[in-house]
Amino acid sequence: MSKVIKGGTVVAADRTYEADILIEGERIAAIGQNLSGDTVIDASDAYIMPGGIDPHTHLEMPFMGTTAAETWESGTFAALSGGTTMVVDFVIPGPDGMLAALEEWEGRATRQASSDYSYHMAVTDWSEQIFHDMGKVVDHGINTFKHFMAYKGSLMVNDDEMFASFQRCAALGALPLVHAENGDIVAALQQKYIDAGIPGPEAHAYSRPPEVEGEATNRAIMIADAAGVPVYIVHVSCEQSHEAIRRARQKGMRVFGEPLIQHLTLDESEYQNPDWMHAARRVMSPPFRDKNHQDSLWAGLAAGSLQVVATDHAAFTSEQKTLGLDDFRKIPNGTGGLEDRMPVLWTRGVETGRLTMNEFVAVTSTNIARILNIYPQKGAILPGSDADLVVWDPKLSKTISAGNQKSIIDYNVFEGIRVNGMPRYTLSRGDVVWSHGQNDQPQPGRGKFVKRRPFPAV
Amino acid sequence: MSKVIKGGTVVAADRTYEADILIEGERIAAIGQNLSGDTVIDASDAYIMPGGIDPHTHLEMPFMGTTAAETWESGTFAALSGGTTMVVDFVIPGPDGMLAALEEWEGRATRQASSDYSYHMAVTDWSEQIFHDMGKVVDHGINTFKHFMAYKGSLMVNDDEMFASFQRCAALGALPLVHAENGDIVAALQQKYIDAGIPGPEAHAYSRPPEVEGEATNRAIMIADAAGVPVYIVHVSCEQSHEAIRRARQKGMRVFGEPLIQHLTLDESEYQNPDWMHAARRVMSPPFRDKNHQDSLWAGLAAGSLQVVATDHAAFTSEQKTLGLDDFRKIPNGTGGLEDRMPVLWTRGVETGRLTMNEFVAVTSTNIARILNIYPQKGAILPGSDADLVVWDPKLSKTISAGNQKSIIDYNVFEGIRVNGMPRYTLSRGDVVWSHGQNDQPQPGRGKFVKRRPFPAV
Amino acid sequence: MSKVIKGGTVVAADRTYEADILIEGERIAAIGQNLSGDTVIDASDAYIMPGGIDPHTHLEMPFMGTTAAETWESGTFAALSGGTTMVVDFVIPGPDGMLAALEEWEGRATRQASSDYSYHMAVTDWSEQIFHDMGKVVDHGINTFKHFMAYKGSLMVNDDEMFASFQRCAALGALPLVHAENGDIVAALQQKYIDAGIPGPEAHAYSRPPEVEGEATNRAIMIADAAGVPVYIVHVSCEQSHEAIRRARQKGMRVFGEPLIQHLTLDESEYQNPDWMHAARRVMSPPFRDKNHQDSLWAGLAAGSLQVVATDHAAFTSEQKTLGLDDFRKIPNGTGGLEDRMPVLWTRGVETGRLTMNEFVAVTSTNIARILNIYPQKGAILPGSDADLVVWDPKLSKTISAGNQKSIIDYNVFEGIRVNGMPRYTLSRGDVVWSHGQNDQPQPGRGKFVKRRPFPAV
Amino acid sequence: MSKVIKGGTVVAADRTYEADILIEGERIAAIGQNLSGDTVIDASDAYIMPGGIDPHTHLEMPFMGTTAAETWESGTFAALSGGTTMVVDFVIPGPDGMLAALEEWEGRATRQASSDYSYHMAVTDWSEQIFHDMGKVVDHGINTFKHFMAYKGSLMVNDDEMFASFQRCAALGALPLVHAENGDIVAALQQKYIDAGIPGPEAHAYSRPPEVEGEATNRAIMIADAAGVPVYIVHVSCEQSHEAIRRARQKGMRVFGEPLIQHLTLDESEYQNPDWMHAARRVMSPPFRDKNHQDSLWAGLAAGSLQVVATDHAAFTSEQKTLGLDDFRKIPNGTGGLEDRMPVLWTRGVETGRLTMNEFVAVTSTNIARILNIYPQKGAILPGSDADLVVWDPKLSKTISAGNQKSIIDYNVFEGIRVNGMPRYTLSRGDVVWSHGQNDQPQPGRGKFVKRRPFPAV
Ligand SMILES: [Zn+2]
Ligand SMILES: [Zn+2]
Ligand SMILES: [Zn+2]
Ligand SMILES: [Zn+2]
Ligand SMILES: [Zn+2]
Ligand SMILES: [Zn+2]
Ligand SMILES: [Zn+2]
Ligand SMILES: [Zn+2]
Repeated sequence: MSKVIKGGTVVAADRTYEADILIEGERIAAIGQNLSGDTVIDASDAYIMPGGIDPHTHLEMPFMGTTAAETWESGTFAALSGGTTMVVDFVIPGPDGMLAALEEWEGRATRQASSDYSYHMAVTDWSEQIFHDMGKVVDHGINTFKHFMAYKGSLMVNDDEMFASFQRCAALGALPLVHAENGDIVAALQQKYIDAGIPGPEAHAYSRPPEVEGEATNRAIMIADAAGVPVYIVHVSCEQSHEAIRRARQKGMRVFGEPLIQHLTLDESEYQNPDWMHAARRVMSPPFRDKNHQDSLWAGLAAGSLQVVATDHAAFTSEQKTLGLDDFRKIPNGTGGLEDRMPVLWTRGVETGRLTMNEFVAVTSTNIARILNIYPQKGAILPGSDADLVVWDPKLSKTISAGNQKSIIDYNVFEGIRVNGMPRYTLSRGDVVWSHGQNDQPQPGRGKFVKRRPFPAV
Repeated sequence: MSKVIKGGTVVAADRTYEADILIEGERIAAIGQNLSGDTVIDASDAYIMPGGIDPHTHLEMPFMGTTAAETWESGTFAALSGGTTMVVDFVIPGPDGMLAALEEWEGRATRQASSDYSYHMAVTDWSEQIFHDMGKVVDHGINTFKHFMAYKGSLMVNDDEMFASFQRCAALGALPLVHAENGDIVAALQQKYIDAGIPGPEAHAYSRPPEVEGEATNRAIMIADAAGVPVYIVHVSCEQSHEAIRRARQKGMRVFGEPLIQHLTLDESEYQNPDWMHAARRVMSPPFRDKNHQDSLWAGLAAGSLQVVATDHAAFTSEQKTLGLDDFRKIPNGTGGLEDRMPVLWTRGVETGRLTMNEFVAVTSTNIARILNIYPQKGAILPGSDADLVVWDPKLSKTISAGNQKSIIDYNVFEGIRVNGMPRYTLSRGDVVWSHGQNDQPQPGRGKFVKRRPFPAV
Repeated sequence: MSKVIKGGTVVAADRTYEADILIEGERIAAIGQNLSGDTVIDASDAYIMPGGIDPHTHLEMPFMGTTAAETWESGTFAALSGGTTMVVDFVIPGPDGMLAALEEWEGRATRQASSDYSYHMAVTDWSEQIFHDMGKVVDHGINTFKHFMAYKGSLMVNDDEMFASFQRCAALGALPLVHAENGDIVAALQQKYIDAGIPGPEAHAYSRPPEVEGEATNRAIMIADAAGVPVYIVHVSCEQSHEAIRRARQKGMRVFGEPLIQHLTLDESEYQNPDWMHAARRVMSPPFRDKNHQDSLWAGLAAGSLQVVATDHAAFTSEQKTLGLDDFRKIPNGTGGLEDRMPVLWTRGVETGRLTMNEFVAVTSTNIARILNIYPQKGAILPGSDADLVVWDPKLSKTISAGNQKSIIDYNVFEGIRVNGMPRYTLSRGDVVWSHGQNDQPQPGRGKFVKRRPFPAV
Repeated sequence: MSKVIKGGTVVAADRTYEADILIEGERIAAIGQNLSGDTVIDASDAYIMPGGIDPHTHLEMPFMGTTAAETWESGTFAALSGGTTMVVDFVIPGPDGMLAALEEWEGRATRQASSDYSYHMAVTDWSEQIFHDMGKVVDHGINTFKHFMAYKGSLMVNDDEMFASFQRCAALGALPLVHAENGDIVAALQQKYIDAGIPGPEAHAYSRPPEVEGEATNRAIMIADAAGVPVYIVHVSCEQSHEAIRRARQKGMRVFGEPLIQHLTLDESEYQNPDWMHAARRVMSPPFRDKNHQDSLWAGLAAGSLQVVATDHAAFTSEQKTLGLDDFRKIPNGTGGLEDRMPVLWTRGVETGRLTMNEFVAVTSTNIARILNIYPQKGAILPGSDADLVVWDPKLSKTISAGNQKSIIDYNVFEGIRVNGMPRYTLSRGDVVWSHGQNDQPQPGRGKFVKRRPFPAV
């Protein structure tokens, strides 16, 4: 049973051209003119792009005394409906260690995922056990380790732990990832605003200024450089952090930066909303920033100093948000975005001329596939690649609303934004898993774990 | 008569993988495992890469009262022997205008070229005639226009001429190229050193300091930004110029920078050589720089703020250099490099760990193919691409010497440099035109003009 | 007849201390405790500061087909009323050359000036005559030469003229000043907006974007560096220009930057005012900028990368502005500011905590006195210094309004701004020439020319 | 008994002028022409400058298992012989706390000092006790607190301790000082080189790369900014650290940077000396750097982004250095410089044209006096200022050598450097305490503690 996508324009990271795509089984079998197959998928007046990869999600993550409400089932289906065919989720070890946590994560993902997926493993402490477990994690097909410089008292690691882990990454051919905010200063500033009688969500932003993120980014880069390993900074939200990345790259250091679709389009004025719930729903770390930072992030994507657009999808319900009603420090940190990343980025990036279509593909899919060492299995339209494809219709449009989303969250931070450009069809390993206007349903268990081999060790 | 390249590792700008390559006629027909064809080309223990593209040559250029001695015949064959399968040469209009000059260039190239080729057209003045001719030049298949900010009194254009031409480029979908040095200041500094009694080649370097290049780069970028067109800076030799490019890119401007293999590896101490001829042979503009600038250029290639490595091949004989025996201003500006670019870049870039193999391919071929809008006909290893390929043997080595080069020049600025990594075979549109250790000969007239369509107009 | 200023706090560029100041004749005779004199000037609850020096005025300047309406009489009295005791005006040579123009300027100034004054001489062309005249101008007591990179077709000089003049400055021990905007590009952009049917004042701003100023600043600095002379950039209005200055200073180059009080406090939204006259009154070059640039300028004053706050006082009446009713290019460029510089800077700079009081004195008086080589005759509170002093009362306040100003212009660009901090008394060479609440009158002819010796030649 | 310094040229931070200086008692009584006094000090053909202030010494400091051999007696006399009339030494609290340590320091200084002196207090931990003691320290006349980000396991404080202390400084009107190197990474790198079998002094430099200093500088600045207090970075040795300072200043932050005379003139090649002792004698933190960093530091002094030149005088004998014969980590960190700072800075800075004479005075004396809030008692030539003066003879020269120095150390890191410019006379509070060519002797106990009031609290 072959399929052929006909009549479309292929948009890859490196070029744009008209071609049909023949799919046999789970893979692309041929790309060319006048191909035929058993089933025809109509791509006329549309673009065919590699399915999006969101390298930063927290589905059903236990965090801050609750668990992110977005499930693997709802989240991965929401992703597919928005053109994202693979997510990479963060495994957070508990007291039983990395391998137990991995098992726990697999238990959830295997049963529920509609899209393909992979994991990053968090290093939240340091010990001989962890040193050894990192090797086993790599053997399991995970080549990325996450480090939190914030969340003091829980996830945070200090500089010598980070250096030890980075050196271990170098030896294993793995890539360290970093949440870059200075946890000591965040904690002290949080206390300051509480003491000053400002317990509302606006103080969340006040206590995490851009300088605090820029500092940590700069520090993580120095430590990676000393350890002789590249480094990937997640959720780059501000010029300060971007500047540190650029400065390092200008010296030949291998540093990657990932802005989120939220920081590219939303700003800190949201936290001034008199409606507590409106503001609380937008509490995430780093917080939204002054609008000026957005220009920096967009330019970075165009210039190549930033490479990936992600979501940090960590979606809590309104009710969960009320945990922090009296104290912003207890508001579960996180917002959604998985479903909206690609339409919003297209609308605000490609339609405005900030990004070319090829850059759109690069930053939503190809670049991260290369960084994660799964290219061209993922992130490419090449013979032999997985047939994770989006037929992108630039004429389809909608107004984003919690009322019509696939996510099970009861609100949406992009509520009211009009997007032009949406998937007409989304294919995952050759199957049409989303078609606009049809009543598609999640296919829990269909998604597969994507193994990622380490890079050659340093 | 098909050919198959077997046993090698394909290195493209985006990935590295083992595959055979089947060639039918002039094009790549298939890439895969266990392919077979009428002829087998052995690539075992070797890399298969897209043929190099040198976007900056001056073959047989009339300049400074003489004509560059490297002919289209010798130059393009030298290129092939070094793994470069396409050159882009600069057409310099004389009093009869662009179209007459183009005809003249074609007269030389058509008869002699062994490799494929294309042209940039120089804009050395401004008039309604030129405005109209630019349109015809684009129709002819040329989408790039060169502007000289130096060479006062001959090639130099001033700011309003440049702005007019850049606007015209924007309207035509063409890309402006710029030789960026402040010609007024160069001329004044040249006079100063002559007046000071320093007529030797060292004064060539003194009179063209990096600041003079950085200034002009910065100015060209501003003018392009005002005209709403991207811009490509040729022969970026120094941090000052690179800084201007980075600064612009950080604001989202579309600016490209091209360092030369000479500036990446040779430095200004050459001009202090007590042997006049040694120094004079190295006179080019911009001159070689202090070693510190090299770090900046290498980092730019790794970071993506510089995209292309070229040669500015403008090769004059020792005898021609003596035109400036009494006055450095009369030394014909230019050096060779076409034959050595890829081996030297591999040795100093890839072997040292500064660049990955994929980046090597990107900066020698793929990036410029995209910039010139001829990708993936050129610069790619994809089905349908021209079979311009190099079987690169990292074990082959030699010491560069005028005594064993294909160039007809009587010296070589890289003399004595040991290179590791050379072509085992070079293929041009499917034919093996160079094979290491065989007595290959030039095939004048074999090379073809490569048409380049304009980009969508702004 | 001695005077003593009693009960105040002396604020100098380097310190703040309580002291009385004894004046004998035109000079400060002593500074200390419990001094007595024939007359007592009350400075209780007030600061005593060196009188302001405005190094950038155009009184009665013939320009753009009219003559600036602010006269030497009204302008210098307005200055005194605002705490400025010396102005430096620009002599613009006409067809009869520098010396004739100087005579013309002296004719006006000598008769009318209430405050002390000096001149900068403009170099608007290049010739052997000018080369020689520059020497005579220096002999006359003028050590600064102004260069316009804009106003194409009238005042503008090109790069080799500027380089020649800068070298001459180096030889004479004079300091070149530069109006930095790329005149070619401004002219072309002006034409573009006229052609596009936008003849209003908003197009004045559109046609002079910050990049055009940044470029010219960068170029002027390079040329000065090549000529071996420091350089002073007038009316630095934007981050782009400031960045070029910082970058040069970070390399050890001697570059000075002068923001205007207008650019520190007013922004480009003024040009969007639907009232043509409102916008036209604010037309000056460079134009007001986006608010973000203000942060850059204020930080530069604090960091020392910018040194002087001036006004570029070139005041035309509303009627004169109507010359450009149909074409923004004909609106006489210029606004007032001489009277308001110090109160506005105090209010927006010192009261907000951006500048210390010492920095206020530095940027309004001391720094420019040092740059102009008249320190400590001017710009200092030291025994022997001219008794040009302001008794600054931080409690005095007013709302700026054309209705109550000393300037004879019929509007004020700072209209409606509330200022706190104004002169209680202004002294010029020992005489009280302004006292708050008294009916002081101009004293035409009282002001004297201040000779400025050249610096040691390079 | 008055004294008059006659015939000299006064060089202050803001101007240069010819004048005599009358001294009565300990203070400057008058500055003017033709002054007379009981004793005449000849300053003909010489400059009169404020005595140098070295804000960074460690006399008799207990450190790394030994005690710096330079005593208060020898050190302060060496200072005077080189034109430095005041030192500020670091009090390092032991287990008995700040006040006990202060008493200990006073015990040594009071008895021995020939020059005036003051202290900085180190904060090496955090507790309520320290919070309170800081207040008492300020009451004692000390307005600066030092923080070590390196020396893990002994002096190092972490980020939240530093933030707490900085906030306390803000409340007290005190200025935090920082030794900026990332102690975690230094410790890890030290271990790495030991493990790699490189126990020699060269590994001292390898384990403290510039990036490690730049990172810590950047972090200290962020923490100070969050605490709302200025910050002073001691021994800025590299571009990375200077860049962080410049970047902060460009945003309006109040950050000061202090390069040492060693880093301005000596480079890392010293650690490659095959003579272990040669290299070990130069072991200090931060280590000497690649020569390129020197350009950055010199330019910073000229541009004002760096303000003070100090020595970090911590002088150990050759025998003490042998403590680290088998392990570079045990080599006592520190070199001398107190005696040589001013002659070396004059020779390499003023004679070469990098600094003006006024800048020389600013960076050796005036700037730090203002930063420490003791201006114009110290650092100025003004009536009423302490008569701490140097009659500087630009014709006096010598070759620096341990053989002829006042320091009691058996070597000198500037050995063999020829200096032009030395004190003819040094005066401390009106007394000639050093006269060139005379057999001056230390005057232990003559020096006095200089109280420094806090700044207005934030
Ligand atoms: Zn995070
Ligand atoms: Zn996250
Ligand atoms: Zn060129
Ligand atoms: Zn060229
Ligand atoms: Zn102007
Ligand atoms: Zn002006
Ligand atoms: Zn230290
Ligand atoms: Zn120290």
